Amino acid sequence: MNELSFLLAPRSIAIVGASEDFSKVNGRPLKYLLAKHYAGAIYPVNPKYQRIGALHCYPTVAAIPEAPDLAIVALPAPLVAQAIADLGRRRTKSVIVFSSGFAEIGEQGRRLEQEVISVASSAGIRLCGPNCLGLINAFDGVMATFGQFAEGETPPGPVGFVTQSGAFGTAIAALARRRGIGLGYFINTGNEGDVDFVAAMRAVLADPRITVGAGYVEGLKDGPGLIALAEEALAAGKPLVITKVGKTISGARAALSHTGSLAGADSVFEGAIRSAGIIRARNEEHMLDIVEALAGCPLPQGRGVGIVTQSGGAGVLMADRAEELALAVPVLSDATQRKLREAIPAFGVAANPVDVTGQFVAEPRLLHDAIKATLYDPEVHVGIVWLQLMDAYVDTLVGIFESLKAECAKPFVVSWVAAPEAGLGALRRRGIPVLRGAEPAIDAVAALANYAEDQRFWQADGKARKALRETEAKRHVAAPASGVVSGPAAMKWLNDNDIVTIPTRYVRSAEEATVAAAELGFPVALKIESQDIPHKTEVDGVRLHITDIAAVRQAYAELARNAQIHCPEARLGGVALQRMAGAGAELVIGLKRDPVFGLVVMVGLGGIHVEVYKDVVFRLAPVTQAQAGRMLDELRGRAVLNDTRNRTAVDRSALERLISNVSALGAASGNRLRELDLNPVVADATGAIAVDWLLVMD
Amino acid sequence: MNELSFLLAPRSIAIVGASEDFSKVNGRPLKYLLAKHYAGAIYPVNPKYQRIGALHCYPTVAAIPEAPDLAIVALPAPLVAQAIADLGRRRTKSVIVFSSGFAEIGEQGRRLEQEVISVASSAGIRLCGPNCLGLINAFDGVMATFGQFAEGETPPGPVGFVTQSGAFGTAIAALARRRGIGLGYFINTGNEGDVDFVAAMRAVLADPRITVGAGYVEGLKDGPGLIALAEEALAAGKPLVITKVGKTISGARAALSHTGSLAGADSVFEGAIRSAGIIRARNEEHMLDIVEALAGCPLPQGRGVGIVTQSGGAGVLMADRAEELALAVPVLSDATQRKLREAIPAFGVAANPVDVTGQFVAEPRLLHDAIKATLYDPEVHVGIVWLQLMDAYVDTLVGIFESLKAECAKPFVVSWVAAPEAGLGALRRRGIPVLRGAEPAIDAVAALANYAEDQRFWQADGKARKALRETEAKRHVAAPASGVVSGPAAMKWLNDNDIVTIPTRYVRSAEEATVAAAELGFPVALKIESQDIPHKTEVDGVRLHITDIAAVRQAYAELARNAQIHCPEARLGGVALQRMAGAGAELVIGLKRDPVFGLVVMVGLGGIHVEVYKDVVFRLAPVTQAQAGRMLDELRGRAVLNDTRNRTAVDRSALERLISNVSALGAASGNRLRELDLNPVVADATGAIAVDWLLVMD
Repeated sequence: MNELSFLLAPRSIAIVGASEDFSKVNGRPLKYLLAKHYAGAIYPVNPKYQRIGALHCYPTVAAIPEAPDLAIVALPAPLVAQAIADLGRRRTKSVIVFSSGFAEIGEQGRRLEQEVISVASSAGIRLCGPNCLGLINAFDGVMATFGQFAEGETPPGPVGFVTQSGAFGTAIAALARRRGIGLGYFINTGNEGDVDFVAAMRAVLADPRITVGAGYVEGLKDGPGLIALAEEALAAGKPLVITKVGKTISGARAALSHTGSLAGADSVFEGAIRSAGIIRARNEEHMLDIVEALAGCPLPQGRGVGIVTQSGGAGVLMADRAEELALAVPVLSDATQRKLREAIPAFGVAANPVDVTGQFVAEPRLLHDAIKATLYDPEVHVGIVWLQLMDAYVDTLVGIFESLKAECAKPFVVSWVAAPEAGLGALRRRGIPVLRGAEPAIDAVAALANYAEDQRFWQADGKARKALRETEAKRHVAAPASGVVSGPAAMKWLNDNDIVTIPTRYVRSAEEATVAAAELGFPVALKIESQDIPHKTEVDGVRLHITDIAAVRQAYAELARNAQIHCPEARLGGVALQRMAGAGAELVIGLKRDPVFGLVVMVGLGGIHVEVYKDVVFRLAPVTQAQAGRMLDELRGRAVLNDTRNRTAVDRSALERLISNVSALGAASGNRLRELDLNPVVADATGAIAVDWLLVMD
Repeated sequence: MNELSFLLAPRSIAIVGASEDFSKVNGRPLKYLLAKHYAGAIYPVNPKYQRIGALHCYPTVAAIPEAPDLAIVALPAPLVAQAIADLGRRRTKSVIVFSSGFAEIGEQGRRLEQEVISVASSAGIRLCGPNCLGLINAFDGVMATFGQFAEGETPPGPVGFVTQSGAFGTAIAALARRRGIGLGYFINTGNEGDVDFVAAMRAVLADPRITVGAGYVEGLKDGPGLIALAEEALAAGKPLVITKVGKTISGARAALSHTGSLAGADSVFEGAIRSAGIIRARNEEHMLDIVEALAGCPLPQGRGVGIVTQSGGAGVLMADRAEELALAVPVLSDATQRKLREAIPAFGVAANPVDVTGQFVAEPRLLHDAIKATLYDPEVHVGIVWLQLMDAYVDTLVGIFESLKAECAKPFVVSWVAAPEAGLGALRRRGIPVLRGAEPAIDAVAALANYAEDQRFWQADGKARKALRETEAKRHVAAPASGVVSGPAAMKWLNDNDIVTIPTRYVRSAEEATVAAAELGFPVALKIESQDIPHKTEVDGVRLHITDIAAVRQAYAELARNAQIHCPEARLGGVALQRMAGAGAELVIGLKRDPVFGLVVMVGLGGIHVEVYKDVVFRLAPVTQAQAGRMLDELRGRAVLNDTRNRTAVDRSALERLISNVSALGAASGNRLRELDLNPVVADATGAIAVDWLLVMD
């Protein structure tokens, strides 16, 4: 039982505005409920009819003989609120509103929708919709929908599917059916007046018969809610696969910092879900490939893929793609190679990818033995078998895979190009995932490996996460004034909170500058200091590589003059003097407040190049050091942190500590912090240090 | 008629080693030839039989009554050379060798193969194979194959397909058949003893019935040959779509320069084919999506996509993907929007993407009018219509698309998710491309738009290409000595050939250094000069931002000492003094010799970051300035060349001239030049200038 049980597994269903015309929106639910043998009570409500088919039809909601668990409302929009009020009086537990004409049509509809929501809420009714296709609980024959998907077979299965879009969701469900993927639930949340994507998915995953959650998302309202749900799902070992469209959701917002301006373009969503093990699918086919693999396979214990093909080219294509997705295609052990050489013809290839050649057609045992040998290799964690056509050998092949599934504990998938329908069906009925090509197979396997890794990481990092939360609760951060914070005040705040900055002196005269430079040691940098000049280079307000006292004097004078010329109105805070940073790797570390997910921490590479390559990774704040390490691993240009031609590797743990500290500071600042940019942070073998900073408070 | 006519369209076929068992490799060609009503003469050769079916069987090749245009040889490998010798005496024009046991099995097979090749060559016989499935010319019923693909229907069509892999090629051909894509030719080139991929594709494209070439490539031998073929295809208006596996073909070669080390990983192939308008497909489905679109659509005259959907989410998914592929999703004109508002329901969306909602089910005309209005918009060059399911409305929908195809000159494709089989078939029979999802549709349309653009560009750039070739022929480049060329000699050579370098003085004492610095003007850079130290920073051999005479002296001393310590054996050429370059955009421009394609020119972005992000683009040398411009456009970080916060846009035409000059210099150097790196090249609003260089000659 969960809070949406009455909605998802009602023992009785009223249909308000039911029609005897089973082709109509308000007629179809009854048709489907009868066809799929819904076992509960059905109460059609419509004053026009005495009966619909064999069922008694009630003139009003008040006339229904019991309080229904669920009511379907299929009335014109202006009549919906009244119907829900009536249902409330009848102590109805939940309602699905099919009707459109609400928020999706503009201001007037939005007002109607608010009314519906408030009526339902005050009556204690949980509301699905409005403007939705409704839902199917296939286990219990609950066909509370008018969607096209209900027209065909809807056998229950371990996959729970929740979709914000009716049309696209229906298409995905139909594709799943074609693959023989059983959807235990199909739920379209529509306008999400009450029950939103997260709530529906949580209820679905609470059902022990569901082992995989699949979702289609167009606009997410509750980012932290999704992440909380994902963590519950991780704990329960139920993978969650999501396709989300709308990659530019928050991209348009103006922002002062790099962190702010880079936070659009989907990357916040990407980073947030990655930390919680949500699997992101590019599109509908990719989603179903992953779902099919998850539903049919145990999780791999590592990233090693063993590839068995009958075509060298397919093997190369898969190995290339595996490399792109950071899967390993390990060299097989001598023992494995020996076993393979015994099994396959001399002109085959006994290395990974294994090429068994077309010879297995004459000698099926060969394929079986080759796959088995490959799967048993200690470096192989998951197998992929590539086939094409083979119309005449379906039974043999299905037999081979069936016995392999029984014999081997390791997961494998079949990639079968131009597969005969009979072969596809037979494998899928046996719970063996079969993908339609080489690339989809690798993509699906990569999703499995990533998820398994996320799960392991999440478990291993549990203690650190807990410790971080406890520390956070104890922190008392005295935040500085609002708006752009002055350089010295920001520096003090950072230093007070365990964030190291480069030695810096703020000075107000050329004389002071020369003294400070001598103290800091040459070479030094001079930077104009003003809260009104967040981007100093724009006013030619930076002088680098200054090597002597005379040059300090001259640089001071130039900066003061430039500020005067370019920003005569700016409040000047003098000039910042810094010891020049060494030649380390340059990063940007920042914080920003995302409208959907709240406070997020960003890591990017490359100083000025961060804007060009947008090589940035986000996470919800705070992150543990280990999570920070994973962020660094996700940077495309991460190689710059390793040993390079001109530099030894940077101190990764100092960098991870810095990222974690920044994220913890942000989280502890509550809603006060708007944006923080540490740009650049310079990291080398001795540590990681912020060289410039921009802090904006609310 | 072309040079492979006897192979591709033989008027008579001998089958050497023919079997009466039609299930065997040597029996199947006869079975297929008879089944597909091959109209020419067939001569089975086998001393075991008098007759096979209704055909006379000849005991020896000598007994065949005429010189056959084509002979199929299906004998054990050791017997093949003798059979070809016999066929040669019989004046046979061409031979296909099915037999395996040649180069693919190692050294012994390689020797056998060489023998076969030389026998064929001296007899003037064109050879396809060995180790191949043979070929099909579906127009003329030439079923010279034992491949599985021949088992089903093989209706001829406008697509010519050439594959280096038998197994993978068969799978692709079978998938094409399922889509109703007619393959006029299916050719498997196998070991390519004589007829290689390029020769086969050239012969196929010479057939006027073929309008699209499709190829599957595993290992390319003749890069320039492929490019020459692609240019012929461009001139003939026949698009060429290729899937190539093996992304790491030349990646392992050691190289001194960045250009050399970055040339692996498939990027040379990518760059080379892009300049010649070859369309690269990621995998088999992507290839067929593009082929289907090309075969069914005229080419779009621009990059504007008009999207019509029944689901907002599908529209967003397509718009996102379009943006990723640099397609435009233009704002529709007021007139178009007016027309749309008349056509679609109030709760639809009359902007691009257009959402017609599910209402068209009740009112099919609405869909027709909405698509038509969108296609007629002046900014729309190609349309995509997204549908799902609609099993009950197949006839209506097919009718709509059929009349749209008749009425509108602009191309459009249908993206139909979970489409009913009847709908797919009906559209495809009418030559209307239909893709299985939103993303594949956008991907196919992008390929069309790219190809059309390549074609227009290639035509527009024809004169410049011609001029470049003429200049090249006239150039006499006196190349410097071999090995790593000294800094001053390389600089002179570059300057003599229109490549600008930063003002540089080579000096041999601290005293000379101070004089040179004063002449150049501060700040200056000092760099150790030695042919034996190609990477100066590795020996701490560079000093930048030197601002006075004393520091010059000190830097000189340090560099001399560092060279002594790190490279005591190195031949020192003193120190190079340069005026410090301004703060422009940093690029790498280089040349290298690729084993498959010959001399290629590279452009990369980002100074040291070039290695991290591998943001580089290659082309065959030489390139025109306009081609150089396209290279810059293909850089992921190209935004760095535009106006940015701290800098005005760089002088693009100076940069393009520099790239073109470098490429022309390389091309004119013949085989002498091994590697050239200009790294960095600094570009700003005033020009583009090489700041450091590494030249290696053979």
